[in-house]
Amino acid sequence: MKKRLFTPGPTPIPETVMLKMAEPIIHHRNPEFNEILTRVNKNLQYLFQTEQPVLTLTCSGTGGVEATFVSLFSPGDTIIAANGGKFGERWVKMPKVYGMNVVEIKVEWGKAPTEEQVLAALKANPDTKAVYLVHSETSTGAATDVKSLAKLIRENSNALVCVDGITAVGAHEVRFDEWGIDVCVTGSQKGLMIPPGLAFVAVSKRAVEAMNSSKLPKFYFDLKKALKSYADNDTPWTPAVSLVVGVDAALQKIREEGIENVWARHRRLANAIRAGVVGAGLKLFSEFPSFAVTPVWVPEGVEWKQFNKILKGKYGITIAGGQDDFTGKIFRISHLGYYDELDMITMIGALEMTLKECGHVFEMGSGVKATLNALMAK
Amino acid sequence: MKKRLFTPGPTPIPETVMLKMAEPIIHHRNPEFNEILTRVNKNLQYLFQTEQPVLTLTCSGTGGVEATFVSLFSPGDTIIAANGGKFGERWVKMPKVYGMNVVEIKVEWGKAPTEEQVLAALKANPDTKAVYLVHSETSTGAATDVKSLAKLIRENSNALVCVDGITAVGAHEVRFDEWGIDVCVTGSQKGLMIPPGLAFVAVSKRAVEAMNSSKLPKFYFDLKKALKSYADNDTPWTPAVSLVVGVDAALQKIREEGIENVWARHRRLANAIRAGVVGAGLKLFSEFPSFAVTPVWVPEGVEWKQFNKILKGKYGITIAGGQDDFTGKIFRISHLGYYDELDMITMIGALEMTLKECGHVFEMGSGVKATLNALMAK
Repeated sequence: MKKRLFTPGPTPIPETVMLKMAEPIIHHRNPEFNEILTRVNKNLQYLFQTEQPVLTLTCSGTGGVEATFVSLFSPGDTIIAANGGKFGERWVKMPKVYGMNVVEIKVEWGKAPTEEQVLAALKANPDTKAVYLVHSETSTGAATDVKSLAKLIRENSNALVCVDGITAVGAHEVRFDEWGIDVCVTGSQKGLMIPPGLAFVAVSKRAVEAMNSSKLPKFYFDLKKALKSYADNDTPWTPAVSLVVGVDAALQKIREEGIENVWARHRRLANAIRAGVVGAGLKLFSEFPSFAVTPVWVPEGVEWKQFNKILKGKYGITIAGGQDDFTGKIFRISHLGYYDELDMITMIGALEMTLKECGHVFEMGSGVKATLNALMAK
Repeated sequence: MKKRLFTPGPTPIPETVMLKMAEPIIHHRNPEFNEILTRVNKNLQYLFQTEQPVLTLTCSGTGGVEATFVSLFSPGDTIIAANGGKFGERWVKMPKVYGMNVVEIKVEWGKAPTEEQVLAALKANPDTKAVYLVHSETSTGAATDVKSLAKLIRENSNALVCVDGITAVGAHEVRFDEWGIDVCVTGSQKGLMIPPGLAFVAVSKRAVEAMNSSKLPKFYFDLKKALKSYADNDTPWTPAVSLVVGVDAALQKIREEGIENVWARHRRLANAIRAGVVGAGLKLFSEFPSFAVTPVWVPEGVEWKQFNKILKGKYGITIAGGQDDFTGKIFRISHLGYYDELDMITMIGALEMTLKECGHVFEMGSGVKATLNALMAK
């Protein structure tokens, strides 16, 4: 059976990138690797649309975000964090562990933080050191308007604008410099289309300054050390060499396509999936849908486990289930990374056949028809 | 030109393992991955010769050691650390960053800590929480007698026996349970023959108990969280999936060969390289040679940069140079991981041709002859 991955990380890896990573390994303290990392560093700046450094760390996205907390702040610092899902929740817990004062903006799952909420939190906490936003919340498929909120935060405070861009970078428009973002983190297994194991952290001049007054102990996640090595296109610790080789190839693909085209493709594919899902008589979960992942309510009368068993066992398609309170109630289809228009038709076709087998009542073909129309309407 | 890697991490990757890692990626929260991790966890216990948990973390070896410091100890705790090279030095610096009281056993580069030194440090610091030893110091090629020192520490204190086994596990005999080790860390790009990006941490019952009283803040490197997930053959954060797939294949290779045979092979190859180096009229750097890497003095009259340029540029062989005070003065040949007897002949043959070109005076062929004799004498 052909297997197809529609999960929001890991995402499918382009075949040429897989084979590149399978080449004989090179040593990281050698000119060959330095040349690769020099190109990666440059292309990461293109990806984030920044002239500031983008640091490559060997860890998951969670480790990348932790590096920003321990490197920029001190115990007692006030951090505002928007929590509208599993990851937002994590960025509330993490700074608490490090003794920071966390002001939580609670956001209903499927929704995004509003300007009013952020402004109120800033007004109530004028000493806020940073606001953490999740650009695309993987657990809910909700997208945050980072551009507007960054502007608002900049205009109303001195707080750093820190963005979990893990499921957003490479799918959503991100203009680090133009939008005034101070910290943006992503992971390798998302829009970058390679296996998990690397995190990338863009840091503004203000973020670098903040590192000078940080009092938290750190070693592996010390971004100051990473910055020092970055100046020589090096890393302080042994990097995940094969993944860096992979991201080099993936970034070259992104550059060839053009970042604006990559963003436009994600918007087009997301719209096509949503049209297909609605066309097949299902309901979307999120009010502010992300271009990376589309969560859908499991329709009444359909049992999630049976549905997933057929989709996976008979059609070879892996999607993601719901989390926490929404386990068994929603499922999530990812269209983040290495996908094209025909993949969306494949996905909706399999979805329709699976739904039919599960007893869901709808007109067969109505999902794919809607997807085709959405794709043609571009 | 054929390229050959003789560096102590990354080490060469078996072709079958490279191809395994190039297969389409799978999602980590799925039964397919659970099955792989279940097998990996079991085979890691075989590798470390333990019935205790061996945790898989996505980070370099340095991150693995940091996880042990932040998860087991508290500020003010006394740690004895033996420092006889770049890595020993790092394990002195790291706990200091976390506010621990570090008692340093200074060891001359190329030598190993003695029983007398360790005993004296323990007697002078009866409240010591742990002794950190480097089994095979990559920068000097010196091996520490972990078996004897573990016994000594156990008999004379309550301190935990913590071992940096990064360049040792899979090359040197390591019997975690039998020797009474409490913590042992290794990295993926060493004896495990896969790319860097994973660290493995074996923890004894005493080490797990120590986690309960640790007061240091931690999140990504929280071994208690890792242990909780380990019980379900899962990981708390997204793991480096392709590397886990690789280590699964590599561990199966080790199991097929048999761990005792793997250790014996490393001893045999190390002896063959040393015989070859001495046969070609060079001098060994370390008094207590490791089976993983052999450092050699650059002979008088030979210029390191020219030597390395010929070895790499003409013969395609990458070795490691000296570090810190020994830059340009020594070089290091690794025989850790995926090597066989014929690779040693290749290496010494290239060494002889390079030395001759650099003007070193010796009888051509004397190195390879000594290597052959050493291999036949097994």
